[in-house]
Amino acid sequence: MTDTTLLQSARELDAGDAIAGYRGQFDLPPGVIYLDGNSLGALPLRTAAHLGEVVRKQWGEGLIRSWNTADWVNLPQRVGGKIAPLIGAQPHEVIACDSTSVNLFKLIAAALQMRPGRKVVLSEPGNFPTDLYMIAGLEAQGLAERRLAERARLVDALDDDVALLMLTHVHYKTGEMFDMAALTKAAHEAGALVLWDLSHSTGAVPVQLNAAGADFAVGCGYKYLNGGPGAPAFAYAAERHHDTMGQPLTGWFGHAAPFAFEDDYRPAPGMERMLAGTPPVLGLSALEQGVELVAEIGMDRLVEKSRGLSEFLRRAIAHFAPDLPCISPADPAQRGSQLSFRHENAYALSQALIARGIIGDFRDPDILRLGLAPAYIRYEDCYRAAEALGEILQTGEWERDEFMQRAAVT
Amino acid sequence: MTDTTLLQSARELDAGDAIAGYRGQFDLPPGVIYLDGNSLGALPLRTAAHLGEVVRKQWGEGLIRSWNTADWVNLPQRVGGKIAPLIGAQPHEVIACDSTSVNLFKLIAAALQMRPGRKVVLSEPGNFPTDLYMIAGLEAQGLAERRLAERARLVDALDDDVALLMLTHVHYKTGEMFDMAALTKAAHEAGALVLWDLSHSTGAVPVQLNAAGADFAVGCGYKYLNGGPGAPAFAYAAERHHDTMGQPLTGWFGHAAPFAFEDDYRPAPGMERMLAGTPPVLGLSALEQGVELVAEIGMDRLVEKSRGLSEFLRRAIAHFAPDLPCISPADPAQRGSQLSFRHENAYALSQALIARGIIGDFRDPDILRLGLAPAYIRYEDCYRAAEALGEILQTGEWERDEFMQRAAVT
Repeated sequence: MTDTTLLQSARELDAGDAIAGYRGQFDLPPGVIYLDGNSLGALPLRTAAHLGEVVRKQWGEGLIRSWNTADWVNLPQRVGGKIAPLIGAQPHEVIACDSTSVNLFKLIAAALQMRPGRKVVLSEPGNFPTDLYMIAGLEAQGLAERRLAERARLVDALDDDVALLMLTHVHYKTGEMFDMAALTKAAHEAGALVLWDLSHSTGAVPVQLNAAGADFAVGCGYKYLNGGPGAPAFAYAAERHHDTMGQPLTGWFGHAAPFAFEDDYRPAPGMERMLAGTPPVLGLSALEQGVELVAEIGMDRLVEKSRGLSEFLRRAIAHFAPDLPCISPADPAQRGSQLSFRHENAYALSQALIARGIIGDFRDPDILRLGLAPAYIRYEDCYRAAEALGEILQTGEWERDEFMQRAAVT
Repeated sequence: MTDTTLLQSARELDAGDAIAGYRGQFDLPPGVIYLDGNSLGALPLRTAAHLGEVVRKQWGEGLIRSWNTADWVNLPQRVGGKIAPLIGAQPHEVIACDSTSVNLFKLIAAALQMRPGRKVVLSEPGNFPTDLYMIAGLEAQGLAERRLAERARLVDALDDDVALLMLTHVHYKTGEMFDMAALTKAAHEAGALVLWDLSHSTGAVPVQLNAAGADFAVGCGYKYLNGGPGAPAFAYAAERHHDTMGQPLTGWFGHAAPFAFEDDYRPAPGMERMLAGTPPVLGLSALEQGVELVAEIGMDRLVEKSRGLSEFLRRAIAHFAPDLPCISPADPAQRGSQLSFRHENAYALSQALIARGIIGDFRDPDILRLGLAPAYIRYEDCYRAAEALGEILQTGEWERDEFMQRAAVT
């Protein structure tokens, strides 16, 4: 059921795409349309080459010496410094380490320490689970109290008990984006600090942490930064907090003098005090390549392409599958680089698409999520995905038994 | 100043070494004698090959699907299960994740929760810094109280306030080994739990956690397990604690149903509740190869070789450098797979050795540490190191300016 006008339009958009050439820098499998870069970013060719070098040369030949000669010891700071300009931060305000979950724990704890007498961490129900669970961890320690309020009521819920407002900037399910500056201002007016989870933002949408007056942020390395499966995450703290902030995971790499082997902990200056254990060199090395590639393409161009792609996909799905409700905001400036659709059998739909080589994903219980990594997705990919989705819905192709069986991870 | 008798003896020992052939399974640089496998293990050839496969096939081609098809989702459990027999544990009692530091935090917190009314975590001064610092982190949260006692006084310090005795089984500086069973028993008699740090033990000395009645343990992936720089670490908890233990880093991978995306945390059964964020796939994949290689060689043979090597090296250094005091225990059954020597200019000594291609390391302030990874070190390597050390000391070669300059990490 080809629509030649729409297909032609996709091809013209691709032909006029200023960053189309960067697709060739990714190792994308033939025959696959990959709309899941918001879950796991694709492999940059340079990363495969660089990791070979890190393994054979730096580890194999350099051995322990590479902590100095390959500057492994500064990887967290170096990679953090390269992420910083992508999110409107200064290089020394960002450090790459641990997982998003662990970094959330550190920064929530840091915020609680900075607001003695206040214990409430405010977030929204349906926030990404690990964000809510990390509050629960501190709650079980008796140090925090979790409060959830629907997004329309968040500002009302900001009272004198709130130490920290903690939100995910772009919602993982719906793609809705918060107004970072406005909510940060509201929290500050209530005497609270703010922590932004940028997992679905970094590398895809405009983020200006310092301009928004943000206090803290975390983000994921394996989505739009293409850092590889389970890549290290990052943590940000505004410079004004560097001297006063503390965090409980006081490991040796966060010590002022790790190799003095002192018995007593003294925090390193600045973001280094956010480090805990020995940095994961393989993961950080892969992440560094992904970050450099994103920086090379440039956030302005990525944002423009992201909006173009999601707008085109929205129109194409409205055309081929007019009955499928899109739950992402209609205004591209108010959503992340994804579109989400509601369907009772969203799981089976996602499986039927995968069987056709179109990889999106499913989010419990009824959401089909299509991610648009602007660095390597083409307008024609969006056309093909929309067309396939239309066919799958019209023919009932998704109703096959094999598509209804749920796998462990989706 | 070759000693032909001693050299001959080394060569005979190498010729009779049942596991000599495994050296060929490591990518060791030519011209280097690597006595620092206790700091960063060497690169197994299989790891380089496997990582290429993980990157190109699993990540590049498989993309998000590899969480199921390559079973990434079970990497922490699978790698932990392979480490378990090396430390006298059952497969479901060990999980590979995060860093040693972060795992220490989880397990100290778990122990404190299990001993309400007791806040003291007992350790020894001079324990590896990160172990002491992680107690400090919980102390700053108001949840723990650190108590340090010299090793001879540890048992006396076990009173009714002690929730946890936390020790490093093999001391990183001296190589001294604790009697795990005896100290575990003493702690239990005082109503305390025990956490063993096996960073300098795993893969090198006999460890029988369950036979010793241990409660918790952590260990490092990048030393004798050859998991690569900054490899993920592991955590152990005795099965009897699995239902009752909790930990504060309650991330989504430790949830009973991570992909149900519930707002409330429910711990996964068993060791899975020790997980926090998304598992680091590259690091775990490398670690798995290193662990498999150690398991293939076998702990019995590794322990026998380790003792043989350190005994030979001790004799050879006593011969070539009779005035250099060895601070490691004389009985090979009471020390780890290393020998440490005290010298006012230990740093310069270690640098002079490195200039000759013999890589050991220096530990502040005055310790020269020579590690003997039994999987790939030869008796002749020990001979060469001892001979070189003797020459460096006799000629004063270490006094050169270039050897006195301290680098960032050593």
